[in-house]
Amino acid sequence: MTQSPEQAKGFVQPQTLKGFCDYLPEEMIARNRVIEVIRNVYERYGFVPIDTPILEYLVTLIGTGGEEINKEIFRLESPEREPIGMRFDLTVPFARILAQYPDTVKLPFRRYHIGPVFRADKPGPGRFRQFTQFDIDAAGSKSVVIDAEIIAAMCDVLRDLGLSDGEYQIRVNSRGLMDALLIASNIDGEETRKHVLRVVDKLDKVGLDNIRKELGEGRVDESGDPIRGVGLESGTIDKILEFIAISSETRASVLETVGKVLPDAECTHTAIDEMKELAAALDSLGVGEDEVVFLPSLARGLDYYTGPVYETILPGAPQVGSIMGGGRYDHLVERFMPDPIPATGVSIGLDRLLAGLNAIGKIDTEPTTTKVLIITMRGVPMTELLKIARELRDNNISAEIYLGKRKAKMSDQLAYANHKNIPAAIIVGSDELESNQISIKDLVAGKEKRADISDRDEYRKSGKTGQQTIPREEMIPKLREIIGDE
Amino acid sequence: MTQSPEQAKGFVQPQTLKGFCDYLPEEMIARNRVIEVIRNVYERYGFVPIDTPILEYLVTLIGTGGEEINKEIFRLESPEREPIGMRFDLTVPFARILAQYPDTVKLPFRRYHIGPVFRADKPGPGRFRQFTQFDIDAAGSKSVVIDAEIIAAMCDVLRDLGLSDGEYQIRVNSRGLMDALLIASNIDGEETRKHVLRVVDKLDKVGLDNIRKELGEGRVDESGDPIRGVGLESGTIDKILEFIAISSETRASVLETVGKVLPDAECTHTAIDEMKELAAALDSLGVGEDEVVFLPSLARGLDYYTGPVYETILPGAPQVGSIMGGGRYDHLVERFMPDPIPATGVSIGLDRLLAGLNAIGKIDTEPTTTKVLIITMRGVPMTELLKIARELRDNNISAEIYLGKRKAKMSDQLAYANHKNIPAAIIVGSDELESNQISIKDLVAGKEKRADISDRDEYRKSGKTGQQTIPREEMIPKLREIIGDE
Repeated sequence: MTQSPEQAKGFVQPQTLKGFCDYLPEEMIARNRVIEVIRNVYERYGFVPIDTPILEYLVTLIGTGGEEINKEIFRLESPEREPIGMRFDLTVPFARILAQYPDTVKLPFRRYHIGPVFRADKPGPGRFRQFTQFDIDAAGSKSVVIDAEIIAAMCDVLRDLGLSDGEYQIRVNSRGLMDALLIASNIDGEETRKHVLRVVDKLDKVGLDNIRKELGEGRVDESGDPIRGVGLESGTIDKILEFIAISSETRASVLETVGKVLPDAECTHTAIDEMKELAAALDSLGVGEDEVVFLPSLARGLDYYTGPVYETILPGAPQVGSIMGGGRYDHLVERFMPDPIPATGVSIGLDRLLAGLNAIGKIDTEPTTTKVLIITMRGVPMTELLKIARELRDNNISAEIYLGKRKAKMSDQLAYANHKNIPAAIIVGSDELESNQISIKDLVAGKEKRADISDRDEYRKSGKTGQQTIPREEMIPKLREIIGDE
Repeated sequence: MTQSPEQAKGFVQPQTLKGFCDYLPEEMIARNRVIEVIRNVYERYGFVPIDTPILEYLVTLIGTGGEEINKEIFRLESPEREPIGMRFDLTVPFARILAQYPDTVKLPFRRYHIGPVFRADKPGPGRFRQFTQFDIDAAGSKSVVIDAEIIAAMCDVLRDLGLSDGEYQIRVNSRGLMDALLIASNIDGEETRKHVLRVVDKLDKVGLDNIRKELGEGRVDESGDPIRGVGLESGTIDKILEFIAISSETRASVLETVGKVLPDAECTHTAIDEMKELAAALDSLGVGEDEVVFLPSLARGLDYYTGPVYETILPGAPQVGSIMGGGRYDHLVERFMPDPIPATGVSIGLDRLLAGLNAIGKIDTEPTTTKVLIITMRGVPMTELLKIARELRDNNISAEIYLGKRKAKMSDQLAYANHKNIPAAIIVGSDELESNQISIKDLVAGKEKRADISDRDEYRKSGKTGQQTIPREEMIPKLREIIGDE
């Protein structure tokens, strides 16, 4: 690293930690809006908030997420010299809460939790070591109706964020269906079944032919390395491939086909009945067929979850991947206590969701929430401007008095407003003050007008574009007109 | 630590890290409401949000908060083996942002920042190693009008939180006034002046006589240890004590008395003029004399801040101390760059504010935001209940279907609602379903009624208290009546 002149003089170089990011107002305002939408929807569905510390005893964290995540835990020591770590997800703290407060936290418990999580992995574009998760889970209920509610709420979130039919798709599959297929084919071992699920999960990456080989004897990849196969018989492999090829317009018709493909056995009926219950609940909640599809080829997370699994994609932003993943898992509290607590839920990747919304133009980022800049002018007492500010704020109009350099020129003050995208300015000169008037400048209209003007004289004259002088008592309604606020 | 039976079987004991705390729904709902109020007010005043990582390079953190805070930084290593630390306040990240993004962050910059900060100090009652700060600062403006705006917004916050006149008091003093006194008395050194301020700050703890000694030759404390005095002449000491004794009903009259007590010098006039400007701005913003008082004895933070200082107390909860502290400081970015940026702001201690609101009964904590529990009954299809849930949520009424144990008794479901303080229940039996009716149970009214009943038979009959069967189409208005929602 080369030293800047400031560093040479002993100044600290201001820099964000590698792999981390700052959120400046433009990004933060958008984040806050999205968080508010999600919170409002899930609260309507009966979910309540919790929060837990960023730091946990290492023993609470270790082992829960597998070897790979263990390596990625930011580790440190408590002042008491105990090994501690920064949380890497919000599921571990949720499990701890359930085990720790059995008397306070009455089941079923629907909670949401927003917060930063930390992973010391390789950062990359859009991949940070601190990122925000928004987790929604319900514990203590075996009913798939909860799954339906969580999915329906996700649809509400996306609609409230301004997305229309076809701009999002929630894909649902069920561990139970695939398990039924394997159990009915006499493939019993949990490990073998998980192996199958991991192979199927690679469908998009390696293609159908390679999947067939990996389910059977195995294959050799391009680099010449052998890939161990699951060792299934070709009849079973055909069944699996037939199963994951199922696709249809409606959830009911998918299940109908699934029923024909899967072997006629009790485990099949149980699994299909559960999915039928989920489908009926989605119908009752008014969830459209284009919003939520049943997709037997969805394998993502199937080896982790124990029942229905779901993910959400924005077809207009495939590069972002899934913005929400979830499903049912029954091993939530197994590290803390012997009695299992069934649970189901989703984790929304807030950064991914925002990237997706951005990519499909569904988020208006603005560098400020301020609607009015009050211009300062020589000869006009600050007290008058403060009274105007008070009136605006009392009417719930966000306002700022320009308080930069003293005696700043009006053009500098307007440039400041433009930089921050503040849509309106209020100008009160001595004349206006005397006649109890104010001037309002529509900065958006003015900017658009000026962009159309090539002639220099015209440009100059346009300085007054969108400016009007009105009686002081008309200030609030006129401003609401300009800023489009109710 | 003794092993529990679970631990003996290899289970991890679920426990919160020492010095940290969990926020269960009851507390979290209250926190979210308070945060929303503060955000709304400050956004009306033109402040915009930012966020920064929890972790910073250690060199960014070290040295900024003094020796004591350096020791309290949670330290760790980045994956690149660089020394890093967890932020201990939100001021350091703010300074970094200002120095790092001079082109994006246009001055003056009014920002707010909410987030956890970390200090590895001794935990105690109400004192945690992770706590939440809500910082509001404006950088790039020398005008005390900004101080007035920040103070006025704090009054708005407290009013919006339901506090009335007399339930809060913001106390304001100015480093400039005390400095004027000392400079005019020919006490020039910055270090000596800070020493005086630290002594005066002890007024409440050690009393006037000891202050007099410490400003002079020093004294010996109860344990026999000598305390070094500032070494001022007795005339100057008298002036200081006269100054800090000033108290009056109005801000203007305090300044009038201050003008008489302070020596007639240019620095006095400058300092008083600045406070007069602040007073005029507060008047224009409609801030009452009982809301914000000028108090020359306020010394808290005077040695850190460079202009006006302020703190907020709730007279009904003196044990909580100051819930907000702030002031003007011009050394904000001095570690990062040579050109100073003037700044002023407050830090609201969210945990203290909540403790204070709690102590004076100004916060209604509730374990849930859910308004309606929909009871499940044998013979009534779930799909019907889901349709009711959908209708309630479409009408912005938060609702939950009971999805605990299958076939749970109605009394168990109502106990669940009571535990969570859900105010209403909807009951739909087969009869109601057939006649297109629903029953609504007012759980608050029912609970109050039953509390009054001693007779056992009457108690039993009261099970139906507050329950009424109505046509389905009257459900929404009737519910709004019960839950008091608009």
